[in-house]
Amino acid sequence: MNTRPIGVALLGCGVVGSEVVRLLTEQADELTARTGAPIELRGIAVRKLGKHRDVPAELLTTDSAALVAREDVDVVVEVVGGIEPVRTLLLQALRAGRSVVTANKALLAEHTAELAEAADASGADLYFEAAVAGAIPIVRPLRESLAGDRITRVVGIVNGTTNFILSAMDATGAGYAETLEEAGRLGYAEADPTADVDGFDAAAKAAILASLAFHTRVTAADVHREGIRDITASDLSAARALSCTVKLLALCERVPQADGSERVSARVYPAMVPLSHPLASVDGAFNAVVVEAEAAGRLMFYGQGAGGAPTASAVVGDLVAVCRNQVQGGRGPRESAYAQLAVSPMGDTPTRYHVSMEVADVAGVLATVAGEFSRRGVSISTVRQAVRGDGATLVVVTHTAPDSALAATVAALHELEHVTSVTSVLRVEGDTP
Amino acid sequence: MNTRPIGVALLGCGVVGSEVVRLLTEQADELTARTGAPIELRGIAVRKLGKHRDVPAELLTTDSAALVAREDVDVVVEVVGGIEPVRTLLLQALRAGRSVVTANKALLAEHTAELAEAADASGADLYFEAAVAGAIPIVRPLRESLAGDRITRVVGIVNGTTNFILSAMDATGAGYAETLEEAGRLGYAEADPTADVDGFDAAAKAAILASLAFHTRVTAADVHREGIRDITASDLSAARALSCTVKLLALCERVPQADGSERVSARVYPAMVPLSHPLASVDGAFNAVVVEAEAAGRLMFYGQGAGGAPTASAVVGDLVAVCRNQVQGGRGPRESAYAQLAVSPMGDTPTRYHVSMEVADVAGVLATVAGEFSRRGVSISTVRQAVRGDGATLVVVTHTAPDSALAATVAALHELEHVTSVTSVLRVEGDTP
Repeated sequence: MNTRPIGVALLGCGVVGSEVVRLLTEQADELTARTGAPIELRGIAVRKLGKHRDVPAELLTTDSAALVAREDVDVVVEVVGGIEPVRTLLLQALRAGRSVVTANKALLAEHTAELAEAADASGADLYFEAAVAGAIPIVRPLRESLAGDRITRVVGIVNGTTNFILSAMDATGAGYAETLEEAGRLGYAEADPTADVDGFDAAAKAAILASLAFHTRVTAADVHREGIRDITASDLSAARALSCTVKLLALCERVPQADGSERVSARVYPAMVPLSHPLASVDGAFNAVVVEAEAAGRLMFYGQGAGGAPTASAVVGDLVAVCRNQVQGGRGPRESAYAQLAVSPMGDTPTRYHVSMEVADVAGVLATVAGEFSRRGVSISTVRQAVRGDGATLVVVTHTAPDSALAATVAALHELEHVTSVTSVLRVEGDTP
Repeated sequence: MNTRPIGVALLGCGVVGSEVVRLLTEQADELTARTGAPIELRGIAVRKLGKHRDVPAELLTTDSAALVAREDVDVVVEVVGGIEPVRTLLLQALRAGRSVVTANKALLAEHTAELAEAADASGADLYFEAAVAGAIPIVRPLRESLAGDRITRVVGIVNGTTNFILSAMDATGAGYAETLEEAGRLGYAEADPTADVDGFDAAAKAAILASLAFHTRVTAADVHREGIRDITASDLSAARALSCTVKLLALCERVPQADGSERVSARVYPAMVPLSHPLASVDGAFNAVVVEAEAAGRLMFYGQGAGGAPTASAVVGDLVAVCRNQVQGGRGPRESAYAQLAVSPMGDTPTRYHVSMEVADVAGVLATVAGEFSRRGVSISTVRQAVRGDGATLVVVTHTAPDSALAATVAALHELEHVTSVTSVLRVEGDTP
């Protein structure tokens, strides 16, 4: 047992960083009791001094490299975000044997391999619970609790901004543009919402989840990504008509191949989710992740996926684990990437589609439409037809088929003479009625 | 790194044990890759040989003491249940430096202190994820993920048998006795259902959850316990009338005292839960646990709380963690009981009540009833009165008050001249309409 104080360098002091400082300060005695040694903040690296009134001024520095290199720093906590200069700083820390706790999904989704190798070389710890779904424990369950099981699928709502927008569109019937504006006014969307609404944030998290679940390196570039910009009020009303709602999902699953091998699929897109599905009722800025494993069955984890205090809770939980390891000796779990499964291209990945279209009320149109599906080997689950005036609305939900066959079918439907317009195309998650 | 094979002794080979053997066998290569060393089963202790056709016969033994003492056993996995002889065997193992993975809630709820001290003395690990809520990761989130936060409350549905019975009573309108019989026929209730329906199983889990959440030793004897035997069809219809259902809850919370100190309350009882509450939709044999923490906010964990494969998933997950510790050096988290909070007696613990009663339709009866509440300092949240023939139904939901004041009020209502009968008394969880 090594009970000397553990020195911590904090990189970043924004919404999350200031909450980390608060938790470390207010709970100092409790944290000492839990870890077995006092946790001491050696310094806080920030871009500009002077703006940070909630934290002790004498701890602030703009020289993050010098802070990370201090002799009395044992652990580096990073809540800055982005790739550089953070990547260089954390590699420097890990190579010098300093453990790292980070909330940086973008960095991990591209550079976990490099960071994990640096940690292994020096025997340091690398923890990152806060990088996915904020306060919700999901990294630890995947890498530790389910380490004795075979995870087959992870499906999550992991971006609060897009979930807020889709929930609001569903509740009000409003369109995407005005709902995004409203979300911005309420503080749920940033001035530049690209990272959220185009699915970059969710894709980084999907890469991390897939890597953990399938013991395979998956990076952000491996994740098929579609955002919510093109979701319309008609998509949501089409969903409602089928007792569904629309959610931006991060999906990670094993895809069995014809030769008996397996690939992994990681993808982010808006999908129809039946109201009976546990993810359907996850509203507003909340996150939830459903994990399916062969022995454990279906598990769900739910909570606040963002925000200063929830994210700080996850960061400090990791920090306590790292400090415990330093007190007791030993290390936390290392990267597990032995399976090395190939990534399934999106076109080969099995999905289900919902297609709503306006068609002319003429004999044979349903047969023609059905022919386009069957010609590409796509089996139809349900068709609903409602005649209205001189036209009809046709709603098709398919069984599972390779995504490329479904996309090609939709492209062909657009060209059919009696299809006036294709009004909604959405992938479908779960057992839709 | 120590990559020599890790020897495991398995105690018990029933529904869970045989699944543990299956997972260890079918996933042997994967588990070796995850832990860094092969996991080898040295023997399986059973009460009688010959009944266990699914496991290798040469591993079976009836001499559990000799198995635990074998030189080539590093970890003991216990899925027998009950206190003795398991307590003695596990203490013997821990004292000899062998780590223990157990699913034994009854043992942990009484003897964690003794087991943890033995583990600390020898530096062994003690893991028990499977003891609460089967496959759902809840022990690890409480003792690790939330170690940087302050947990204020844990509320769970942690017994599948009683949840199945209450869900069925709600769905069918049937009474307790016939629903219990049906649950037995379907395999959801044991021949002697006492441990489940009288809340003993849930109380053991509440003790474990409270100990972890509040860093305080809480034993089964500290848990106030009421089962579901007295729940009637009228209780469920009273709940439905208030847009609620009835669930057997395990509740653990901090109870602030007048002098600024805190106590902990751990209790098990059936309660009305609003349909809007996340626990209300947890039906059938499923389990769910809601955790409230100051920084993380409200989290929920959901999944299968029992059954061979789900419980085995949690057991083998723990086994992988213990084996990793042996390969990498170091230990898992130790018992954290530094807070030593006192237990709040049930009478002092703040709760809310719902009371339905039939009253005579005479002037002043509502005033008389209300007077009984206010005389004991109980503030009423809502009163509903429905006149029927020559009487009326009066439904009262209170604000929070010490449980003893509420119980005394109910006792007094029974004695009132114009109260014909008290038809339903239930505690209330959450913000009831």
